[in-house]
Amino acid sequence: MTDTPYLLVDDAVLRRNLETLAEQVAAHGLELRPHAKTHKCAQVARRQMDCGATGLTVATIGEAEAFAAAGFTDLFIAYPLWLSDDKAARLRALTESVAAGGATIRVGVDSIAGAQRLAAGLAGAPVEVMVEIDSGQHRTGVAPGEAGALAAAAREAGLTVVGVFTFPGHGYGPGDARRDAARQEAEALSTAAESLRHSGIEPRVISGGSTPTVAFTGAGELTEVRPGVYPFNDAQQVELGSCTWDDVALVAVATVVSTDAQVPEPRRRAVLDAGSKVLGADRPAWTTGFGRLPDHPDARITSLSEHHAVVEFPPDAAAPALGDRVRVAPNHVCSAVNLADELVAQTANGLEHWPLLARGANR
Amino acid sequence: MTDTPYLLVDDAVLRRNLETLAEQVAAHGLELRPHAKTHKCAQVARRQMDCGATGLTVATIGEAEAFAAAGFTDLFIAYPLWLSDDKAARLRALTESVAAGGATIRVGVDSIAGAQRLAAGLAGAPVEVMVEIDSGQHRTGVAPGEAGALAAAAREAGLTVVGVFTFPGHGYGPGDARRDAARQEAEALSTAAESLRHSGIEPRVISGGSTPTVAFTGAGELTEVRPGVYPFNDAQQVELGSCTWDDVALVAVATVVSTDAQVPEPRRRAVLDAGSKVLGADRPAWTTGFGRLPDHPDARITSLSEHHAVVEFPPDAAAPALGDRVRVAPNHVCSAVNLADELVAQTANGLEHWPLLARGANR
Repeated sequence: MTDTPYLLVDDAVLRRNLETLAEQVAAHGLELRPHAKTHKCAQVARRQMDCGATGLTVATIGEAEAFAAAGFTDLFIAYPLWLSDDKAARLRALTESVAAGGATIRVGVDSIAGAQRLAAGLAGAPVEVMVEIDSGQHRTGVAPGEAGALAAAAREAGLTVVGVFTFPGHGYGPGDARRDAARQEAEALSTAAESLRHSGIEPRVISGGSTPTVAFTGAGELTEVRPGVYPFNDAQQVELGSCTWDDVALVAVATVVSTDAQVPEPRRRAVLDAGSKVLGADRPAWTTGFGRLPDHPDARITSLSEHHAVVEFPPDAAAPALGDRVRVAPNHVCSAVNLADELVAQTANGLEHWPLLARGANR
Repeated sequence: MTDTPYLLVDDAVLRRNLETLAEQVAAHGLELRPHAKTHKCAQVARRQMDCGATGLTVATIGEAEAFAAAGFTDLFIAYPLWLSDDKAARLRALTESVAAGGATIRVGVDSIAGAQRLAAGLAGAPVEVMVEIDSGQHRTGVAPGEAGALAAAAREAGLTVVGVFTFPGHGYGPGDARRDAARQEAEALSTAAESLRHSGIEPRVISGGSTPTVAFTGAGELTEVRPGVYPFNDAQQVELGSCTWDDVALVAVATVVSTDAQVPEPRRRAVLDAGSKVLGADRPAWTTGFGRLPDHPDARITSLSEHHAVVEFPPDAAAPALGDRVRVAPNHVCSAVNLADELVAQTANGLEHWPLLARGANR
């Protein structure tokens, strides 16, 4: 029996999540380019491609290198890269390595200076460029109406602009946040596409989407979505209402190492051996705690240290005992996966160990 | 030049931090057993031993294995282990490997069932046991007055109890939290020591301490402190008032990849390529953001994604430009270190790459 704490994947749930979303996206006539930062894992990427994904999204050149080495060459680095000399050399080498199989690397830009530096660093190596726009998250990206000017400047610098993209990250919120963000995304992308056309560039790719907003996608000119979390889901997605506990395909398996001896029966607290170095410390204000226990929906993880999760149970709830194993859904599965070296997967062929080939590939 | 994002250590500051704390602790006649979970690194552990540390503290058997393999054999696993069969076998092997050099592994217990399981799993292998008490954090540990009963039960099970320990984690807080937690720690440890004596066990080790509380340590019966963060410090320690920016020995070096084109000069926002997968997502309510920029003390990291830190600058402050490199102090350095594969250290001999030998050693 695998020792705790570890990350366990239910492959049947994973496959169902992949199929459900792929069908939903296909029904809207959209292409699917899942974000591989979530899983960092060839086995999941393979299943996504088998479900009809056109390629993968990644966040860094390092992730792109790792997936390209594993045979996934249709890659979009959805990030406004600022090329150091090292990164320029690596991006040129990557471009060359995937070109052998007929693929082209796609990268993001959100500034004229960044585009000019990209062009200089590439020195003619063929990449496709996507202009990033801000659809309301206010993280990166230019205003939608300025996409055309940036695209024109990128073209002027010698780059090939193929479209526009955004990440509606403000859809991670309570109430109508998901629906509102999806609407703003569609409007912003339409404005940006029109802005490119004014600059004489017809956008071939109009790319958006995230796991919590994808259910509201469909309107507008979108051609592609890039959800990340949907293969596994997590406590955040359940609390956002974008999935149910039955859709959570990845949990940390933890052992109860301590209970509160001072509290009379029935036990109301349990301390687990999975802390922030296993679950990640993500804790947006709208979540109910530092993760959830799918088998104890009324329990709350009220505090988290590096190697401890303190779980509180309602007075009338059955709580696990010392030494019991419990399943914990991390708040943000991307963070949890990036802390591990492998996933333990329960598959039709038994337990498999899936390496996390892009763990820590932050450069 | 090392590509961003990466973790940079200033060895001169590191050495000064190690010496200062070692002197302070020695002045109180206390032994120093630093927590190696913070640095996971042989080079830092070596410097700690050279400054007079009696041994290292670790959180898991895996960390103990990694440090023992690197030659550090005087180890205290300050955690209430619940031994699976695998962990029992590993702990026996570890005990045997350090015994060759005359060392003994020390482990924590906080329940009778855990102690009995430990004794059964060890099957006579010699370890030293420390009873964990709760001094106010309410995470793990028995009530101080119950330490003697647990120690007696552990002895009854065949274990050798050598002392008591606690972690005053509630000292991580604003106002008088540090001072109050140190006082409660001293009182709780005295009560626990007395409780052991009532059970006929003279505690040889009375162990407490943490980086934010150690300055208030000295009273009571303490024999040993186990601070972790002090070699590097971090934004939390500065905001707690337990150090200054000059004492921060580790930063993430990041590049500005995006600025807010919509905001007129002077620039007020910058987006960095170091996100939660580099800095960690720790964000206690009393902190001012997701880390700090030592060279821009008025700037605040207002949001953090996996590969983005959004930094806001006051209207009248000089802000970095696109492509500039900036130094970021993580909120919680232990989390940041555990996300990296190496530290880049600026030493008297030039740049060195220090491997993080216990990264991810969570079992």
